[in-house]
Order: sequence, then C-alpha cells, then structure tokens
Amino acid sequence: MTSSAHAPARARELGIAPGIFRPGAHNALTDVAGVLVGHTTLLEGDSVRTGVTAIRPHAGNLFHERVPAAIVTGNGFGKLIGSTQVNELGELETPILLTSTLSVWRVADALVDWMLAQPRMGKVRSLNPVVGETNDGRLNDIRSRRITAAHVRQALDSASGGPVPEGSVGAGTGTMAFGWKAGIGTASRVLPASLGGHSVGVLVQSNFGGVLQVLGVPVGIELGRYAFQKDVAEERGDGSIVIIVATDAPLLHRNLQRLASRALMGLARTGSNAANGSGDYVIAFSTRRDGGAELPNDDLSPLFQAVIEATEEAIYNSLFTATAVTGQGFTSEPLPLDRVRELMARFHVGQR
Amino acid sequence: MTSSAHAPARARELGIAPGIFRPGAHNALTDVAGVLVGHTTLLEGDSVRTGVTAIRPHAGNLFHERVPAAIVTGNGFGKLIGSTQVNELGELETPILLTSTLSVWRVADALVDWMLAQPRMGKVRSLNPVVGETNDGRLNDIRSRRITAAHVRQALDSASGGPVPEGSVGAGTGTMAFGWKAGIGTASRVLPASLGGHSVGVLVQSNFGGVLQVLGVPVGIELGRYAFQKDVAEERGDGSIVIIVATDAPLLHRNLQRLASRALMGLARTGSNAANGSGDYVIAFSTRRDGGAELPNDDLSPLFQAVIEATEEAIYNSLFTATAVTGQGFTSEPLPLDRVRELMARFHVGQR
Amino acid sequence: MTSSAHAPARARELGIAPGIFRPGAHNALTDVAGVLVGHTTLLEGDSVRTGVTAIRPHAGNLFHERVPAAIVTGNGFGKLIGSTQVNELGELETPILLTSTLSVWRVADALVDWMLAQPRMGKVRSLNPVVGETNDGRLNDIRSRRITAAHVRQALDSASGGPVPEGSVGAGTGTMAFGWKAGIGTASRVLPASLGGHSVGVLVQSNFGGVLQVLGVPVGIELGRYAFQKDVAEERGDGSIVIIVATDAPLLHRNLQRLASRALMGLARTGSNAANGSGDYVIAFSTRRDGGAELPNDDLSPLFQAVIEATEEAIYNSLFTATAVTGQGFTSEPLPLDRVRELMARFHVGQR
Amino acid sequence: MTSSAHAPARARELGIAPGIFRPGAHNALTDVAGVLVGHTTLLEGDSVRTGVTAIRPHAGNLFHERVPAAIVTGNGFGKLIGSTQVNELGELETPILLTSTLSVWRVADALVDWMLAQPRMGKVRSLNPVVGETNDGRLNDIRSRRITAAHVRQALDSASGGPVPEGSVGAGTGTMAFGWKAGIGTASRVLPASLGGHSVGVLVQSNFGGVLQVLGVPVGIELGRYAFQKDVAEERGDGSIVIIVATDAPLLHRNLQRLASRALMGLARTGSNAANGSGDYVIAFSTRRDGGAELPNDDLSPLFQAVIEATEEAIYNSLFTATAVTGQGFTSEPLPLDRVRELMARFHVGQR
Repeated sequence: MTSSAHAPARARELGIAPGIFRPGAHNALTDVAGVLVGHTTLLEGDSVRTGVTAIRPHAGNLFHERVPAAIVTGNGFGKLIGSTQVNELGELETPILLTSTLSVWRVADALVDWMLAQPRMGKVRSLNPVVGETNDGRLNDIRSRRITAAHVRQALDSASGGPVPEGSVGAGTGTMAFGWKAGIGTASRVLPASLGGHSVGVLVQSNFGGVLQVLGVPVGIELGRYAFQKDVAEERGDGSIVIIVATDAPLLHRNLQRLASRALMGLARTGSNAANGSGDYVIAFSTRRDGGAELPNDDLSPLFQAVIEATEEAIYNSLFTATAVTGQGFTSEPLPLDRVRELMARFHVGQR
Repeated sequence: MTSSAHAPARARELGIAPGIFRPGAHNALTDVAGVLVGHTTLLEGDSVRTGVTAIRPHAGNLFHERVPAAIVTGNGFGKLIGSTQVNELGELETPILLTSTLSVWRVADALVDWMLAQPRMGKVRSLNPVVGETNDGRLNDIRSRRITAAHVRQALDSASGGPVPEGSVGAGTGTMAFGWKAGIGTASRVLPASLGGHSVGVLVQSNFGGVLQVLGVPVGIELGRYAFQKDVAEERGDGSIVIIVATDAPLLHRNLQRLASRALMGLARTGSNAANGSGDYVIAFSTRRDGGAELPNDDLSPLFQAVIEATEEAIYNSLFTATAVTGQGFTSEPLPLDRVRELMARFHVGQR
Repeated sequence: MTSSAHAPARARELGIAPGIFRPGAHNALTDVAGVLVGHTTLLEGDSVRTGVTAIRPHAGNLFHERVPAAIVTGNGFGKLIGSTQVNELGELETPILLTSTLSVWRVADALVDWMLAQPRMGKVRSLNPVVGETNDGRLNDIRSRRITAAHVRQALDSASGGPVPEGSVGAGTGTMAFGWKAGIGTASRVLPASLGGHSVGVLVQSNFGGVLQVLGVPVGIELGRYAFQKDVAEERGDGSIVIIVATDAPLLHRNLQRLASRALMGLARTGSNAANGSGDYVIAFSTRRDGGAELPNDDLSPLFQAVIEATEEAIYNSLFTATAVTGQGFTSEPLPLDRVRELMARFHVGQR
Repeated sequence: MTSSAHAPARARELGIAPGIFRPGAHNALTDVAGVLVGHTTLLEGDSVRTGVTAIRPHAGNLFHERVPAAIVTGNGFGKLIGSTQVNELGELETPILLTSTLSVWRVADALVDWMLAQPRMGKVRSLNPVVGETNDGRLNDIRSRRITAAHVRQALDSASGGPVPEGSVGAGTGTMAFGWKAGIGTASRVLPASLGGHSVGVLVQSNFGGVLQVLGVPVGIELGRYAFQKDVAEERGDGSIVIIVATDAPLLHRNLQRLASRALMGLARTGSNAANGSGDYVIAFSTRRDGGAELPNDDLSPLFQAVIEATEEAIYNSLFTATAVTGQGFTSEPLPLDRVRELMARFHVGQR
C-alpha cells in the first residue's frame, strides 16, 4: 500500500542529519550497549491497528539489577503509569512498555505477570511497571482493547539489540503525527572522546501535532497541513509523544531529569506546540549501575546537545519510515517523501 | 473474632478529638455534600483478604462534570495511577478507587470499563482513572490478584452518602498500621461561619508504620510495638497511606495542592516517619464546579488547620474501628482499645 | 561602532517571521495592554557595561493590585529572586527587574525601597521582589557591582508602553549569545478572534549559547561559531536567558506555568541546548485581575503556539538589534547581518 | 528581664525528649562533625531587634569544596534566596545565612562580598548565596533594614562548633512563635550503629503559629493562646520557619530532598498548620563530599525518623530558651515554663 513517493526512508537517507554529533552504529536506542527493543504489531480485521513496544535497559532481571532513571512530564494529559515511584527512588525496576491509551492498564498488569514469573521473583509483593501510551484511536478501535498478556510477553521476549524496526510497528502501529502516519522512530549520538565518549539513544512513539518543520523547513505549511490552519480550535495539534532516552553515562536521578528535559527541546524543534491535549513524557535511564561516582555537572552539556539532536532525528524517523495504515475506514498516509526531498532541495537542506 | 478489649470504636468515643474545630454530621468524608463512598470487601478461603473502596465526588458523570483536583506525593514508593493528568489539567474525570497494590492496574481497567458504559460516553477515547493502593500482602495473597471488574462495579454502584463503614472493610480489609490491624478511617471538620463555614472531609486507607502516638501519647512505645524498636533496619515502619480530601470550598488546583500537603501534617502527628518504603499520597478535590472565583489565599489557613485535624482523626479511626483479620496463617490484631483507654486516662487525655 | 554590515534590524526586516500567527502593533511585550518596559543602560569607563530592565504588568501598585503569575525553571543555574512565593501564591506583587548576575541582590533591595516608598505602602512589612539576571561578566566588570538604587528607580519610573528599545540596552547592555553580542529582544502574537483573540508578548534577556539556527538555517555552523565546535568541553554553550511572558488571556497559576514552559520550546528552536551552566527561567503573568473564570484548558493550545513563536522571534531580535560593545578590553561584535541575509537567501528563507 | 518562671531551659531539662533516638554530644546542629554556627545579635534603641545567623557546613571554602544539598519548600510565602540553583546542581557553594525578611537581599549581597574576598576567589563571577528569613516585624523595625555587611561578616567569622546559643539571638532575636517569644533552636540525633550510626542535626529559626502542642500536650489551648481562638481569620497562625538539616550520611540531592521533607513532619508535630502566610523552608546538606556511593534508599528510614525528632525538639528549644524581648513598644514574653512544667506533670509527660 506504499507508493514509491512514500517509500519509507530514514532521515539520513534524505540528507537530514540534525546537529553536530555523529550517530552510533545503528543510529538507534540500541546503540547504548545492552539496551533491547521488541515490538508486537497487532492488525486484526478492519479496525484493530495497535501494538506494544518493549524497551529493556538490559537483558537481566531489572527488579534485582535496577538502573538509575527519571521521568519528566512535558504536558501531562496522558496515562503514563509508574512515574511517582521512579522519581522517588530514582530507579527503574521493570522494562518500559509503550502501547495504546486505553490499553495501558492491561499492559501494565501483563508486565507484572511477566515479571512475577521470572526466576527469583517468588516472594516479590510490590512491583512498579512503567508503561507509556499515546492515543491511536483514529485508526484503531481503541475501546476494544484487544492487546493481551500474550502480546506483551511477545514484545518483551523478542526484544533484541541491533537495528530497531521503525514506523508503523509496535506501539506505533496506529499513531499519527502532524496529520501524517507516524509511529516508532529512533536515533542516537556518540560523543567524541574529548567530550566524554558517552552514547545517548532515543526512541519515540510519536502521535502529536503542531506545525511540522524539518530542520526548520516549513514542511507542514508547504504541504498545507498544520495546526490552526483555518484558525479553528478544532485543528489544534493535539496528540502525544513518549520519548525514551538511554545513556551509558554514569548519571543518577537528578541529572537524568535534566537530560530528559532536554529531549523536550528536540521535540520543540520539529514543530510541536505541546498542545493542551498532549501527553508528552520522557523516560530516561542510565545503563550504568555500578554505584560509582556520577558525572560532574559540568560534563553534562554535551549530553544535553546529544539528546536534543537524537530526539529531533528520532521524530523525523518516526514519520519518514511510517507506511500507510487503514483502520476504521480511514487511511492515514505517510508524509510524501518526494515532496519532502523537493522541499529539502529547494531550501538547500542536505547541502548544508 | 473480636474480644471486648478490642470492641471497635471511633476515636471520639474514647474522648480523642484532635484539634479545635468540630466535625460534620457523620464525621466522615461524606459530610462534604454530594460525596459518596462505597466498599467491596473480598474474603475468600484462607488467604484472600482484600477489597475496593470507591470515592465519588458526586453522583453524576465525572467525565462530563469534572471537579477541580490535585494529587500530592508524600513519598512516592507506590503505584498510584492517574496523577500526572490530574495535576496537568487540575481536574478529576473519574471516581477515585483504592485497592491492593498488585491489583491496581486491573482495578483501573475495570473503572474504565464502568465509565465507558455510562450514558453519553459512546465516543470517549481517552479517560484518566485515578486509583490508589497500599500493600495488604501480609494478610492477603496479593499475588493472586482476585479482585475483578464485578468487585469494582459493586463498590462504585453501592457508593452512598451518610455514615461510612470503617476499619477492616473495602480497600482496608487487609491493611495494617503501626503493627496493628488498620483499614479505612474517615473524619471531617466544618469551619465556623466566621472562618468561611466550609467543610473538609478526609478518608484514609492506612497501612503504614512508625512510632504510634495518639494525641501525643506514646501508645506505640507503651505497648512495646514501634519502628526501629530493636535498632534493626528490618523494623523500620514501612508501609503506605492514601489520603482522600474533599471540600466544598471553591478551590482550584494550586490551592488544592496546598490543602493536600497539609494532610501530610496530620499524618505526621500520628507518628508516621514516611519511611522509605511508603507510598504516601493525597488526592484532594473540591465539589465546587461552577467555575466561579476561587477562595482568596488569605482564607486558606482555617482549611489547612481543618484538614490536619481531620486526617489525624481519620487515621485513629482507621485503627480503632479495625477488627482482627486472619489471612495467610497470620492474625493481625487490632489495637487493644482497653489499653488505649488506660493510657489516655493515665496521660489525662480525654479530660483535656 | 556599527558597520553597515552590522546595521541592526529586527528579524522581520530580514523576512524572518517565525510561525503562523501575526504580531501585535509593536511586535513587543507592550502589545499586551497596560504592560510597561523601562531600561537603564550603564556604561562607565572601560569596563562597566551593564544595566537594568524593568517590566511592569500595569502602571498601578502591584502590591495592592496583583496579577496572576508563575515562574518556570528551565535550568536553574541562576540567581533568580522571588520564585517560591510567586509559585505558592500564584501572583506577582512587584514589577519584574532584570539585571547582571552579581547585582541581583542589590537590585532586589532597591526594588523594595522603591515599592515601600509608594503611596499606601506605609504599613507593609513583607514584599516579594522578582529579579532575574544573566551573566554579563565578559564585557562588564561584574564584580564591581556598580548598579545603584538610582539606576533601578530610573528603569522603573521611565517604563512605558509602545515600542521597546532592544539590543545592547538595559539588562542586555553587556550580554552575549551564541558567541555574538546579544541583549534585549521582544516580540508578540495576537490570536485570531476565532481562537480567542488574546495577545501574548515576550521579552528576553539573552545571554546563552548552543548552535545558532535561524528558522532552522544553521547560521552558527555556517559562520563557524558554535558550541562544542572543537569537541572541547570549554566551548559548551554556557550562559542564560530570562524570558518574560505577558498575556491578556484570563489564566491563573497552573495555566501560566504551562504557558511559561512553552516559551522554553521557542528557546529550543533557536539552537540552545540549555547547557549545564545556564540559568533559564520564564516568568509569565496575565494582566487579567478581575478574578473571573479562567480560560478552559482546551483553549490553551493557540496560546502555546503563540508563545513559542514570540519567544523564538524575541531571541532573534535580541541578536539582530544588538550593537557592538567593548568592555574589559574585549569587543563583542553583533551577528553580521549581511551574512545572515545571504544565508537566508541561500536557504530561501524569507521567500517561504 | 526574665522572671524565674521564664528561666530559659532546653526541652530536655523539662523531661521533654521527642522520639526514640538519642541526641549527639551537644544536641545541636554542630553534632554533625565540621558544621559551624555563628550569630550576630542586633539590638539598637527601642526598635531594632534583629540579627543574622550563619551556618557553615565546614570551615573551608564552600565554593571550591561544595557539599550536596537540597531545598524543600513547605509553604512558599517567603523570600528565601538561592533555591533554584541548589536544586538544579544539587549542591551548596556558600554558607547559609538566616535573617530578617526585609534584609534578606542586603544580607545575600554581603555574603557575596565575604565570599569574593576569600582566597582563590579572584576570578569568580557567579555565586549563589543561600539566605533564609522570617519576619520579625512585630518586635523589630523591619523596614529600617539596619543589618550591614559588618554584621554578616561577624556571624560568618565567629561561627564555631560546639554548643549553639539558642533563643533570642542572631536571626531569632526578634522572632515569635505560637504567640510567644521564640528564636533559634537546635537539636540532633545519632543513629545506633546497627542503623548506620549517622548523625542528623537540625537548627530552626522559628517564627510561626498554630495550636502549640508539646509532645501532644495542648499547651496552646491550656494557656489560652492559639490560632483561630476566637474563630476569626485575623488570628490564623501566620508566620514562618526556616529549618536547617545537616547530616554526615552520604546522601545526594534526591535523598536530601526526601530528608528535608521529613523535617516538615517534625514541624507538624508541634502544632503548626503551615498557614497561608508562612514561608516554611528546609535546607538540607550532607557533609560528605568525597563523591562516593550514596546510601541505599532502604537505609533512609532511620534518618527520616531522626530528622523528625530533632526538628520537633529544636522547635521546643527555640521556644523554651527564648527570653523576653521588647521592641517597638511591645514586649513578647517567653512561654511560662513553670506552666509548661505543670502541664507536663499533669499530663504525665517527662514520666513517660
């Protein structure tokens, strides 16, 4: 169902490479060593277009080998589960799942099932699952809540390192952004050794609105699709994004909060206005769990720059790699990348 | 299973009346006009000792007739669901449910089911259930998660005004505090007309620890049961409390946050240390939803005093009204009220 | 000392007009009716290059006629005075002053003097001055702290509506951004009537770093001046910005916080990374003080879009209107606007 | 001016010893090794009754040898200076000063002077002084602002370890609490080795209201002096407290925030209602600055208990050690300790 104009591509294939730092091997969240990602994509009949995406900070048992973590709320019109405990204790004790708004509680419950069934969990009576969501209700019969524990297990068990499938997969199966089909996107940055050499990876479930710009090029306006276009409140760019940030830099809660808040700056650069109806959250973790000294405050700035760049690029990837999806009688088309290429050329981006 | 020494009683029956303001008609959350409370108590076999408590700010459809609300985290080692949206939008769009830690996600899901089945909800695709919990895992086979959607519906549908059942009922069926059986407790205050005349009601699900004091009388020490008693970290008073605060004063989010934070001061007065393992949350709402002017800042202080008093008393009620519960081969006895009476007499409380 | 290449201009004169909404009459903070701005510029000898900027929400006595307000911290490496009370009470009771880092306490003290000397202030014994700052220590002998109470009074007393002087004036006299001379900048947006018709004005004291982009055009890279350029931590884009946001929309504290946090999204679009060393704050107020009903949450999104646009443009204005300043033996040149024009043309901006 | 009935005494001399843990050698903030306290008391003519109290986490240069720190706001109706940077960077870079409300900016400025004059400070162009205050305007001609840089230097330079002068001294010279003369108070706790063996010290500047209770004994009511006594809003217990918490436990920002929030629970136990007009702040720091591993979350609970106990006792000390002060034609009497002794005996406290 994808015409050549829509042949999905990652942003870099169009010469779109935000910022000054270079990406890691896969330009993905998984470039942070040990991090695993898995998807379950659920397509049923005419109207179930949804899924689950699992992010595992490492392959071990998170409950017994926790990682430092923080959650930052950009705009809290969302159902994210697990934030207060993460921010109180400064750590993550389960994998992170992303899914569809009205399935978030069942998915959390299934994550608890999966965790309790792991070895060494026989006596555990408290567990803090972290589950984020965005609303795929335009393409997906969201009220039917068809995601089951089996789908959750599949996403968790199939999680792997290496390249991450993007676009209309997993928790991005039914999501849209800026009026186009969107989904999962990812990107990464590796700092030069002189700036610490650490990696930062980002993965997004994008489902939001605003006035799309790509490296500043006003793509939304040029394509005639943007928030407030007709000066009516109904088209106001609602929708949400959940942003996962991983790093191998030794950061604890306070600095992970700071890092997470910069991801929202990457979001801003794509044209989001964090509309009233958005549930914009950032979940950040460090894979360093040796309890050693944290990075000094002064060394954070390059990481801030890196996470902004990676977030911006992950969002472009979530749009550019998405394929058309039809659900509930509506077809969401991806951004016409031929037009994007044309605009990039006209505005001399890619030659920059 | 209750000996006469343990005959449950409300604090006032023992002459224990914290503070300076008078209670409302029922000395309960329901003294705030329109507020309804319902319980489902679940006792199955030898090891299921749990339940659900529903708090409805009014009898109508909350989604269409929202109330101003705020949630404050005292210590976030808990699984409370729904806090980020309440604090972003400043309002509550569903009833509040309290339950057992590992059931919180299923209960939230059932609350969504119940809401979506209400009239005028056919097109709703986003909903923010608010569900709190404490951990009843000592008396209850918490991992079995036996609470179903039917139990949730029952609590919601049976919710009523008037006197509120307290003690080992609903979400308090299996909870303990200060080493004794505890559960649900409630109390209220009505301000004198010269101070605004508004009502404040409090309901708690108490399940926490520390060094119990009753109006300052060191009951925990006198009875030989308190945190850190043997200077060992294992007895450190872990456990949680969820506090619901209702008022008919016209307050919006910022002032409801301020009011909620004072409930933690009432908690402090009972001997809690808000231990590391506690999930202490306050959910406050105003029943005023006419959109009119908020109370001026200067008029808040009497409400602060009132909520502190009502919280302190609600916690005493949650202990004093609890009856013994046996589960998983362990019996949790209530506070021996004869000893409490004796101590109150010795320390001349009740004659104050 | 300004060559023609550097002839200051506002962004719109170069065809740079971020976003989709139109500016107000002066494209300035003062487009929000009643808001006044005044500057004191202090140039002494070879090394004093500093000043004070005063923002008055209205011409009356703020202490007796307060306005709803909120302060949001982007990155808190700054000395902003007054934030906790503004956020507790949700209101502003003095004008806002901006100045140089090490003068912030003296300036606050002088503001208190000025307020206490107003009519009807004879019995006032508590006052919460709000003073922000950025660090002009490169051009200004910051440790000499030459700003006096007289300079503060002058800024306050000369504050007026209408066009606002920008660039190297007032609190912007000695500030720099992205390696170029910067200073004060301002912009505004007026929503179409169908979206509420409200005005949003922004004024910035810009003194920060990063990788400058103008409507996405990589000006910093093209001009060879940007953070981390040589992969060394020393050039990391430190520095700060204080952003003032005014609106005539009827918003209270919670929604002003939300509005303020969107200003940081405008900052993000210019290339800031909110470096570790930055003190990035937003102070937002509404001029509506009639105590009437607040705008519904759903109506906020257009205001969010407006404040993002106005902040982005205000920052460009702070750079484009700045003139060269020499202090402490160092000359900070403004952005070469001829080069900017050239880049805009090359990237077809302004023809968009 | 002190009758025998008012002969000041520390709480323990009256048998009042909150909690279960034992105090350190001096039962003072200075029991945390290395911490220094100094006072300047300012009594001039009939109406200047004020002062400065300095708390130095160690005798060295804080700017170069920072300590982990956090600031928590209980109720933000106060002028505390320096909180945003402390919470962003998680550290303290100057000593802490306490003073009178309208002098806070001058005192901060003087602290900057003092710091800049230290060795190795020649190139410093940014500094974050931390200064708290309460309002001594009843006894002190607060608008005259007579505290000078010399007074600030004296407090800093005279700071020492060992016993800490309490009552009507330093920043407590003109403060009142619960309608009685109050001032500076301090206390400490040392954990048993089995619970980690760490020390926690607390120092308060108390100037607040409510319904005074001492170990639960309703002293305020018995003595006929308490908030809302006549059901009038005018007597609502306004006023503030600043609480300093020091520990030698290896805690970083997040856990220092948690520790600080428990100090507010100690405040609650004395009868405060954190009235609308109160500026209640806690500034907590750890003297451990070796960058090593932080204490595990699980080990925090005994420290929470300790800080609650020490805060409660420090407040009693601030009242019991205060001596009468006459200023502006008004005499503030201390609590009549003979009456307190009598009440303690009647309620069998001290025999507990």
